[in-house]
Amino acid sequence: MFESIHFTSHGRQTTNASNPKVLDKLRTIVGAENVVIDPARVEPYGADAVKEKFPPEAVVFPESTAQMVEILKLANEAFFPVTARGGGVGYTGGAVPIDGGIVIGTDRMNRIIEINVDDLYAVCQPGIRTIELQQAAEQKGLMFAPDPASYKDSFIGGNIAENAGGMRTPKYGVTKHHVLGLEVVTATGEVIRTGGKTVKNVVGFDLTGLMCGSEGMLGIITEATLKLLPLPEATSTVRASFRSMEAACKVLTKFTPEGLLPMAMEVLDKFCVAAVEENFAFGLSPDAEAVLLVAVDGSREEVERNAVTIERIIGENSGFDILRAKSKEEEDKLWDVRRAISPSLMKYGTLKINEDVVVPRSRVPELVAKIEEIGRKHNTFVANFGHAGDGNIHVNFVIDRDNPDEIARARKCVAETFQLSVDLGGTISGEHGIGYVKSQYLSYAIDRPTLEVMKSIKKAFDPKGILNPGKMFV
Amino acid sequence: MFESIHFTSHGRQTTNASNPKVLDKLRTIVGAENVVIDPARVEPYGADAVKEKFPPEAVVFPESTAQMVEILKLANEAFFPVTARGGGVGYTGGAVPIDGGIVIGTDRMNRIIEINVDDLYAVCQPGIRTIELQQAAEQKGLMFAPDPASYKDSFIGGNIAENAGGMRTPKYGVTKHHVLGLEVVTATGEVIRTGGKTVKNVVGFDLTGLMCGSEGMLGIITEATLKLLPLPEATSTVRASFRSMEAACKVLTKFTPEGLLPMAMEVLDKFCVAAVEENFAFGLSPDAEAVLLVAVDGSREEVERNAVTIERIIGENSGFDILRAKSKEEEDKLWDVRRAISPSLMKYGTLKINEDVVVPRSRVPELVAKIEEIGRKHNTFVANFGHAGDGNIHVNFVIDRDNPDEIARARKCVAETFQLSVDLGGTISGEHGIGYVKSQYLSYAIDRPTLEVMKSIKKAFDPKGILNPGKMFV
Repeated sequence: MFESIHFTSHGRQTTNASNPKVLDKLRTIVGAENVVIDPARVEPYGADAVKEKFPPEAVVFPESTAQMVEILKLANEAFFPVTARGGGVGYTGGAVPIDGGIVIGTDRMNRIIEINVDDLYAVCQPGIRTIELQQAAEQKGLMFAPDPASYKDSFIGGNIAENAGGMRTPKYGVTKHHVLGLEVVTATGEVIRTGGKTVKNVVGFDLTGLMCGSEGMLGIITEATLKLLPLPEATSTVRASFRSMEAACKVLTKFTPEGLLPMAMEVLDKFCVAAVEENFAFGLSPDAEAVLLVAVDGSREEVERNAVTIERIIGENSGFDILRAKSKEEEDKLWDVRRAISPSLMKYGTLKINEDVVVPRSRVPELVAKIEEIGRKHNTFVANFGHAGDGNIHVNFVIDRDNPDEIARARKCVAETFQLSVDLGGTISGEHGIGYVKSQYLSYAIDRPTLEVMKSIKKAFDPKGILNPGKMFV
Repeated sequence: MFESIHFTSHGRQTTNASNPKVLDKLRTIVGAENVVIDPARVEPYGADAVKEKFPPEAVVFPESTAQMVEILKLANEAFFPVTARGGGVGYTGGAVPIDGGIVIGTDRMNRIIEINVDDLYAVCQPGIRTIELQQAAEQKGLMFAPDPASYKDSFIGGNIAENAGGMRTPKYGVTKHHVLGLEVVTATGEVIRTGGKTVKNVVGFDLTGLMCGSEGMLGIITEATLKLLPLPEATSTVRASFRSMEAACKVLTKFTPEGLLPMAMEVLDKFCVAAVEENFAFGLSPDAEAVLLVAVDGSREEVERNAVTIERIIGENSGFDILRAKSKEEEDKLWDVRRAISPSLMKYGTLKINEDVVVPRSRVPELVAKIEEIGRKHNTFVANFGHAGDGNIHVNFVIDRDNPDEIARARKCVAETFQLSVDLGGTISGEHGIGYVKSQYLSYAIDRPTLEVMKSIKKAFDPKGILNPGKMFV
């Protein structure tokens, strides 16, 4: 079966992309000012949130699908790697050119082409930031529902390529549930069009679904048609403390019999609670072994009524220090504890290894308890928080980045946490993807025959393996 | 590129499936009583709602994934076509073995394995009827949202393979939005596992998305993990008449500024209104050139308030004879006009050619008006109704099945309607799929490079082309 081609030993050698004739052709395609090879200017395009550096040989900024076609035809012919990049804020190196070659920056393809209020869709280019699309939709009374935490920096193209998640998943699903159609340039420089402008579309195989989360390995997105929803009138949030993670998670199952599906259900474990309290003094009770935040949206009356119901259910199920937001300002304040987690945890080390495993949500308490055990076993500080409503937990091992022994122990923790998540009926990543960072763990979650099918799809789309090599498969 | 192999000239010859040694091996795999070759018993498995007959050489009923693996290994080795069949109620021949070979009936794989109330998912085999899953979920206070019109007869496996739609799409999406994971046996007899039990899952390519709507051409589904939702407490419906299709559709856009997303928005054109009135005398006004039904669901208070708002908006936007259901019985009664359409239309001919084109919903009035023109041009009776809220319109050409000239004219109408739908920014099928019935029209909606990618995926999954040959691609 297909093996991904390693062009260089992870970016330290050069590929055909550095050939002066290739660079000249790239300059002809996009204009000389849009091909960057100066090392200082190229460097930022060699890393993402993982912070490891694999600078590309050149960064190329096309402004149109036609230019993208020319670039990919050239790459396929001259045989060099191409890695598409959006906001560059991923956690698994999806946009990082570990095998060298060029990075395609989609920054110039940043137009919103249409927002159709009557038909509830938007058409945009990949280089628009998520927040820009959200704001443009809101101005017309609509909502683009996916809300990855990186929404201020991430690009829509990256959101689709990584099938980004976020907090609103329990009610609204993930990015792939909001993509109606795509224009994609393939590795061989063909323009394909998947899906369309309608939710219903059963014409041919669903290539839109396949492209979502394909991490830039099957093609480069040049245009997206996205589903929009009526903007809910209001939101509200209830925050409460619990004496155990189990009690906090158990309460989520009590919403279902009342027909309630909150928009977001977030949890902090006792280590996060202690960390935010120590650093920000929110006044959380020393008895709080977990803090739960539950948000609802909808019409003003519906939100008010549902928030009151949630407050009642939490009170009936051993929650305490229950606060219900009565205004937007109060709501923002309740969420401060969630926002305080990352800066607080960083006080306990210089490197925060942030995993995002996912399990069926009733298994979250067991997941968290066993991760604590793993941390104790390997003498590594770990704190858990995240999306309790969909079972997607952010596991944070906080260590000293200059201590090789700590790093080695944290690596053991990560591997055991991945195996644990699979054993509990979940998988190794809910939001962040595989990239190069998790490729060695892919076989924990995907069995050999399924992996072979994935590799055969890659081979069918990209026979020479030029698109984002070194990712997903080891 | 790949060409689908035509094993026989559409079922009139035999393939290797009729070889006595092959039949013996099939009997060894599933038991003699589960291999049917008697022509009278085989015949019903050679047709679906299209009513054309392509009897298979044998119908085989496995009861397990292990048996499915053995059947497919044998088919791949002995080289004969395999067509999976669920309820057999499709409109495009997806489950019909037009190139002969065997039909695999999934009837015996009809267990609900798990309904997980806490984690909001169900695990089931493909042979369960949609209604059975819906009822089992409801008994536990949950909802399986997809609701194809054929839900009483269709199987879950078929719903997934065809990515079935239904009336609830505006709020709940289509079947693919509710599939979390699949177990699939491939053409080569490998068992692959796609997705999992969680909404968030970004581990490897999204094969779940790709399998949904793949019409049994990439593998046979042997188990599905499906998303469930809290069961809404109540529903309500508002029905109204309008003096034009344009007015009826325009009102839908007035719900968005109020933050309203009804569950269902259905419309009847003037010919449907006349037909149901002539046959059932509902008392609809002779001025009604369109009838609109709008349904909402949610908590009792929310439904009541939203139904009142919808009633008001319709009144402000030229709707008349507005009826709002005050009870479940009244609601059922309002929907009688919708249920009366098909039996009423059948009075005008002996063959109802039912297409299901889809356009952005604001284009529905133009679509319907131009389809009327097409009907007039070719002297063919046409009536339109359907899912105005998502732009998916059922176009019914009613003719005499024994009149070759009428059939020829209707064929012209169909081709022109497909082109029109694409020209209006939509596509040729919203719910029914392509099968063999629409394969000649696929190129109206899918351009050559995209088609080539689809064919290369088929080739990667099914190198010998044994799975459901003769479908989708011509």
